[in-house]
Amino acid sequence: MSQSVTPFSLRLNREICRKRTPALVGLDPRWEQLPPDIQARSRDLYDDPLVQRAAAFEEFCVRLIDVVAPLVPAVKPQAAFFEELGPDGCVALARVIRYARQSGLVVICDAKRGDIGSTAEAYARAYLAGADDKAAPWGADALTVNPYLGADTLEPFVKVAQERGAGIYVLVRTSNPGAGTFQDRRHEGETLYHAVADVVEKLSAANAAGPDEGLGSYGSIGAVVGATYPAELSQLRQRMPHVPLLIPGYGSQGGAAADVAGGFDAQGLGALVNSSRAINFAYQLAPYSEQFGPRKWEAAAEAATRQMIADLAKHTSAGKLY
Amino acid sequence: MSQSVTPFSLRLNREICRKRTPALVGLDPRWEQLPPDIQARSRDLYDDPLVQRAAAFEEFCVRLIDVVAPLVPAVKPQAAFFEELGPDGCVALARVIRYARQSGLVVICDAKRGDIGSTAEAYARAYLAGADDKAAPWGADALTVNPYLGADTLEPFVKVAQERGAGIYVLVRTSNPGAGTFQDRRHEGETLYHAVADVVEKLSAANAAGPDEGLGSYGSIGAVVGATYPAELSQLRQRMPHVPLLIPGYGSQGGAAADVAGGFDAQGLGALVNSSRAINFAYQLAPYSEQFGPRKWEAAAEAATRQMIADLAKHTSAGKLY
Repeated sequence: MSQSVTPFSLRLNREICRKRTPALVGLDPRWEQLPPDIQARSRDLYDDPLVQRAAAFEEFCVRLIDVVAPLVPAVKPQAAFFEELGPDGCVALARVIRYARQSGLVVICDAKRGDIGSTAEAYARAYLAGADDKAAPWGADALTVNPYLGADTLEPFVKVAQERGAGIYVLVRTSNPGAGTFQDRRHEGETLYHAVADVVEKLSAANAAGPDEGLGSYGSIGAVVGATYPAELSQLRQRMPHVPLLIPGYGSQGGAAADVAGGFDAQGLGALVNSSRAINFAYQLAPYSEQFGPRKWEAAAEAATRQMIADLAKHTSAGKLY
Repeated sequence: MSQSVTPFSLRLNREICRKRTPALVGLDPRWEQLPPDIQARSRDLYDDPLVQRAAAFEEFCVRLIDVVAPLVPAVKPQAAFFEELGPDGCVALARVIRYARQSGLVVICDAKRGDIGSTAEAYARAYLAGADDKAAPWGADALTVNPYLGADTLEPFVKVAQERGAGIYVLVRTSNPGAGTFQDRRHEGETLYHAVADVVEKLSAANAAGPDEGLGSYGSIGAVVGATYPAELSQLRQRMPHVPLLIPGYGSQGGAAADVAGGFDAQGLGALVNSSRAINFAYQLAPYSEQFGPRKWEAAAEAATRQMIADLAKHTSAGKLY
């Protein structure tokens, strides 16, 4: 990595300290759940249903970014919802990523890509901008990556990430009910997700920044570890000391703040905790639905974000930096 | 599945019989390897480097489709190369898929997607058109899918595929040198890829069409199995009797026609064998480079395709239907 490029892990940890929270807001636009006024406006403006939806997704995400940018260090747009709208959705995704970065947020594009050799490198070049906004068409700070194809297929992602000061988050243990089908299979006593974790730790340790600025010794190769399995989370935190974690499953998927405590180091660093639907569509959920309703969806999202931040603050380390 | 929708497996097998070959041509546009006249024309026409490349990719793929459409049943565009160009590349991918289908080809979009629940369904809806061209923005017949997240995450893809008469190809055993890192790990004597194979067989058997038209009893849930491991290929053919295979690794990746013989049933059905670079850029490779050169790149691609078809014909079953 060129000396002039600030590593992803350092940029991320600075933002966590600056915002004083490890809360990560997922951007998961779902047409059926969008506030009715956003739906209606895009229907008035555009004829093509895909263009309507893409415009509505962009407006919704931009307004949500305005709500959360002062509060949290990072956002995680879900690529699938944009891709479902075809190329117009892809344009909207690129704009949403750019707007989030301009708003001072670290952006983790959740696209779960994975392929071999030069094909993997093409995905990395598509999504990883790192320090330079113009380096990639979807100019994110980090990308989620699927490890099934093998350790060699992670290397092109690592190479591009290091060149650009970007990061990747490799799927280690996911938060879905059937995550164990393959991930829990044991070989000589070790599960598959342990094996993936060991590969990720090795990759991240090799490029760890050193304890710069007192922010720990993390590399830029992260791991996705679901909050639905708290005991595993603590074990994986210890097993991957140089790996920043991305913890989904908080909120709508059933994880609670106490469940994610094991994901943090003694300084309160080392993990981001994601909530998507419970913040995006807080206006439809108790206790916010009664107080706010659809016209005040942004106030509901802000209240839900502040609640998440407060919940996380109770359960992260007492000795934390922020 | 509605009675009126023809299953993917049946449409595919009809085309294999009609074209009398299981050869699958990958569409892997790589800027550095494109014929110089295509590069030059797009540079003259467009200023933006990404637009230049997207236009060149589209021209290259359309002309390659014109070459191979009379010869082979199916093509496999690699999404990563188009995504690297941003939204303009995504538009080009959609157009290339549409053109290939209009040319009578079955289109397998190689995007290796995978996610949980409604997110997986969004990916399926984005790529799987099946019988109806207009059903998806990238209107392919089938999509490659990554199983790491678990068996439950395949179900949304299966559901959409069945509704639309589309197919999926689940990564079982890939063709890269490091494929074994995770895929070869054994649990109670069975490798991970065996476990994935068993899930895929169960899913495909559940929707197998029955021996319609004497074309075997295949479902529409396929498997990607690399040609670089011939013994595994034969075992997997037997282990997944209802599963259509997609065999990469032939040609540039080192597999030979004899290595793929084990992928076929007694009728010569049950598998597609893919070649990408060795056909796309045959004009740069011996023995075609001397005879053809860059201006005759299409003739080189045609010669390489015909050679592949002849090679495969020697090694597929003697009792085959075509």
